[in-house]
Amino acid sequence: MSELFVRTLREDPADAEVPSHRWLVRAGYVRRVAPGIYSWLPLGLRVLQKVEQIVREEMNAMGAQEVRFPALLPRDPYEATNRWTEYGPNLFRLADRKGTDLLLGPTHEEMFTLMVKDLYSSYKDLPLSLYQIQTKYRDEARPRAGLLRGREFVMKDSYSFDIDDAGLQASYDAHRATYQRIFERLGLEYVIVSATSGAMGGSASEEFLALAEIGEDTFVRSPGGYAANVEAVQRPLAPAQDAAGVPAAHVEDTPDSPTIESLVALSNERFPRSDRAWEASDTLKNVVFMLVNPDGSRTPLAIGLPGDREVDMKRLEAAVAPAEVEPFGEADFERYPSLVKGYIGPRRPGSDVGVGLDAGGHGVRYLTDPLVVEGTRWITGANQAGHHVYDLVCGRDFASDGVLDVAAIREGDPAPDGSGPLGLARGIEMGHIFQLGRKYAEALGLKVLDPNGKLVTVTMGSYGVGVSRAVAAVAEASCDDKGLCWPRNLAPFDVHIIATGKEQAAADFAAGLAATLDAAGIAVLLDDRKASPGVKFTDAELLGMPTSVVVGRTLAQGFVEVRDRASGDKSEVAADAVAEQLIALLRP
Amino acid sequence: MSELFVRTLREDPADAEVPSHRWLVRAGYVRRVAPGIYSWLPLGLRVLQKVEQIVREEMNAMGAQEVRFPALLPRDPYEATNRWTEYGPNLFRLADRKGTDLLLGPTHEEMFTLMVKDLYSSYKDLPLSLYQIQTKYRDEARPRAGLLRGREFVMKDSYSFDIDDAGLQASYDAHRATYQRIFERLGLEYVIVSATSGAMGGSASEEFLALAEIGEDTFVRSPGGYAANVEAVQRPLAPAQDAAGVPAAHVEDTPDSPTIESLVALSNERFPRSDRAWEASDTLKNVVFMLVNPDGSRTPLAIGLPGDREVDMKRLEAAVAPAEVEPFGEADFERYPSLVKGYIGPRRPGSDVGVGLDAGGHGVRYLTDPLVVEGTRWITGANQAGHHVYDLVCGRDFASDGVLDVAAIREGDPAPDGSGPLGLARGIEMGHIFQLGRKYAEALGLKVLDPNGKLVTVTMGSYGVGVSRAVAAVAEASCDDKGLCWPRNLAPFDVHIIATGKEQAAADFAAGLAATLDAAGIAVLLDDRKASPGVKFTDAELLGMPTSVVVGRTLAQGFVEVRDRASGDKSEVAADAVAEQLIALLRP
Repeated sequence: MSELFVRTLREDPADAEVPSHRWLVRAGYVRRVAPGIYSWLPLGLRVLQKVEQIVREEMNAMGAQEVRFPALLPRDPYEATNRWTEYGPNLFRLADRKGTDLLLGPTHEEMFTLMVKDLYSSYKDLPLSLYQIQTKYRDEARPRAGLLRGREFVMKDSYSFDIDDAGLQASYDAHRATYQRIFERLGLEYVIVSATSGAMGGSASEEFLALAEIGEDTFVRSPGGYAANVEAVQRPLAPAQDAAGVPAAHVEDTPDSPTIESLVALSNERFPRSDRAWEASDTLKNVVFMLVNPDGSRTPLAIGLPGDREVDMKRLEAAVAPAEVEPFGEADFERYPSLVKGYIGPRRPGSDVGVGLDAGGHGVRYLTDPLVVEGTRWITGANQAGHHVYDLVCGRDFASDGVLDVAAIREGDPAPDGSGPLGLARGIEMGHIFQLGRKYAEALGLKVLDPNGKLVTVTMGSYGVGVSRAVAAVAEASCDDKGLCWPRNLAPFDVHIIATGKEQAAADFAAGLAATLDAAGIAVLLDDRKASPGVKFTDAELLGMPTSVVVGRTLAQGFVEVRDRASGDKSEVAADAVAEQLIALLRP
Repeated sequence: MSELFVRTLREDPADAEVPSHRWLVRAGYVRRVAPGIYSWLPLGLRVLQKVEQIVREEMNAMGAQEVRFPALLPRDPYEATNRWTEYGPNLFRLADRKGTDLLLGPTHEEMFTLMVKDLYSSYKDLPLSLYQIQTKYRDEARPRAGLLRGREFVMKDSYSFDIDDAGLQASYDAHRATYQRIFERLGLEYVIVSATSGAMGGSASEEFLALAEIGEDTFVRSPGGYAANVEAVQRPLAPAQDAAGVPAAHVEDTPDSPTIESLVALSNERFPRSDRAWEASDTLKNVVFMLVNPDGSRTPLAIGLPGDREVDMKRLEAAVAPAEVEPFGEADFERYPSLVKGYIGPRRPGSDVGVGLDAGGHGVRYLTDPLVVEGTRWITGANQAGHHVYDLVCGRDFASDGVLDVAAIREGDPAPDGSGPLGLARGIEMGHIFQLGRKYAEALGLKVLDPNGKLVTVTMGSYGVGVSRAVAAVAEASCDDKGLCWPRNLAPFDVHIIATGKEQAAADFAAGLAATLDAAGIAVLLDDRKASPGVKFTDAELLGMPTSVVVGRTLAQGFVEVRDRASGDKSEVAADAVAEQLIALLRP
């Protein structure tokens, strides 16, 4: 400790939003260099290297071969797949001294595809899985939570190449099983959830989420075992209703009711129902957004959903990717005068006021929630300020351009598998596996000869593990209110030895114990500083080695104290037996 | 081999300039992605990782601590040291989505200085040596020779921090000794030469050059042990001459003599010497260049040197760095009418024709070679087309602004240490160690309290090893006309087993031998392909594992053949003894 390049901090860093970030900075494991960009100090790097090694061992064990691609990449391959554009502002772009466009790789599908095309030509060469553990770059709009969402980070990315769908499924399954082993070895409590493929494309994907309150990903689970990232949940269509007894739609004067709350209150006051009070879920809320396409063009999108529900922005963003979502501003309302702010509704054929949302490609694209089905009856905007329409029946009185399920999922919503209510929880995305299919192989011309001598397009999978993120996820899962608390297989050091007091005997015994353990292949951190016992104990808890040994006053009686960081247990151990006992504990 | 991600090429890649590059590509160790940017295939990566491990072990052994900084860095620290500008077009610059300037780190002096400033505050914390093995970026004007001069490459860079000059010297010496161990373990024949510090700054630096004909660095050695990169050689000043008997300078009509050759011929024809013929070394050649400063401004520089010598552009570039050198073009001659192309000479006080090179800050800066000293007598340009001046004596008739030694060094030039003639050779720069001194600490405010409680500026060293370059340098030093030929400690595999023929017994024996060796911890590459013996032998030589075993026809008689790649020796070994023999050879 007197020589280790580390300094602990007594105060939280100003930008620390989550415990793992707070403790990793305070314990001197990492330091911020720029937003989302971190340096690894000796303690942090040791953990990172242990995670890398676990990932490497498991990838090798599944037969994947390690390679290493550059981070600085040419534009052309990413142009061929359109990702140069689709990545939008998330891509770090630059030009070299000759003006040639380059990018910092956010993920390497294109490069691996081209490499396999360069080397391989026959079905006999397949299946093939390649991986790398490498630094990646994404210009996140909101880098946050330290290592959890950075702009420069370490990933293990791998790619599988198969001749047919059955091969892809086998490669995908092998990766899935390998990921389970990796996350078990990392000691993470995790779930595997269905996911959206986003900008990656492809047919199927699953995420590995480490359970964490502070996780950015919300996922659902059903009693029947269904699990999905909320972005990937598709709620079932509600059953159609019989609207035979619903009176004809009628427009009513509803002044000062631009919000759902004011509309419900006014409806109950002026147009009360006989059977029960109006509720927000009786209203149809129409929300308009502006989509910014990768080429910069802008397209409005209206979403109709029950008034008691909100649009989940992450679900919407996932649904419309690679387009980005912006609010529909005053200037947009001016450009689309058919949309009356606060009173937007679908077009009612035959109505002589406000056009509103005109499905069928005539106006603003209009998509509705799975609860808005044939025969459902709504109160909604009449496309005229201060007016709403009542008894508007879906199918009878209006139509939409289709279904879009981007409402925020609620605890208790029916599960898509029909097994009961959905539960909600949060997690950190630790891995993502994709069945890409032939998208990249087609774009870049990766074909091989099949057994009949015919050229066929290769089918691919893409698989990622957040390696630097795993350090933070493990820290997050294991830390407590005193600091970090590493599992044995990831701790920077196995044992932390603390010499206290001014007795030379204690310092000598501690140094001797350190040497004995070191010779036995145990990594020892020896606190040999001239500091008070309190400072040393606080630092030991903050740094989080799983076991510590306190050599102090009781040494004269022939005892030292062994502490377990996780449980807090302390035990007196005979000084002359402690080395043997620790070796037995740590090298079983 | 039937599953390894590798394909060998029978033809040289079009851009291969040097043997290591040719073989590393043909043997499937690396592939080019863009100029100076390479991907590592499985075989190449295994060598790279072995080099990394040797470097890591030796750096740890000297007590340096490993950290890892980002490659994507903020502009500010590099602005504080002026390197944002000084690096000129060699720096990859980019802006993020918010327009914030970033760079890809070419070297990390600034970042390490700031990190130590962040953590440390006392002389008690020092000395400190930190290192990283990390990807670096330089936008080389002429990336070449594969991995030898790339734009993305792996370096070990380390930095030492000391309280005083004696400490810096000790840290420098420790690095020097560590580098000697590293290059010995890499099996490189190397020399340590004095070097220039270039854009890095600082007081002293040495380079570790691997001897190689194709090396970009030329260095000199003297019989007395002096060794220096040619860029760093300072030839001694020639002794002053007595010019008492030299007649007054006189201008002569010398039509059509703009070159040294034409001038010497004309002088011997029209103005012959009585004692001997005029030679090129009797003439004073004045060459003009345009220096482009980091801020873009342009300054002319004239260099006077004997007519039988040439300016060495690399020595000139090193001498004027961070300015860059451009030719003095027609437009420049127009802007400086005092310089008459082909007839440039120094100003002669009292002369009534052409001003020429006017020392003392009046005109173009004029520096002269160490051979141009007091009393030397020259034929040189008269600053008038078709005219030269004879018997022009340095000191008596003209002056310069100082000495600049940038003439090309010649085999046989006197050594600066006075021990005799210099010898010339070429090498690959594998390491460079710098005594930086306080340049960076001052620019970035790195001070610590000394024992008297006074703030003092820390003194630093900076030390680099080209890790990816080392792979190429070792390949270059060890390859032959058949392919790569790795030393045992760097080979991707220890043994290459080749089964030939169609006998199942041979295939089975080869597979069994591979399993036995593998179980003994020996890395085996088994050529199990259905290919001809010729193809397999050629590939084995190309891939370059140090030992190969051929299992073929002689197996029926109980023998296999063991081949040594480096010597070409082949020996028949009893099949039932070969495993034991190889284990004894490889795990002694």
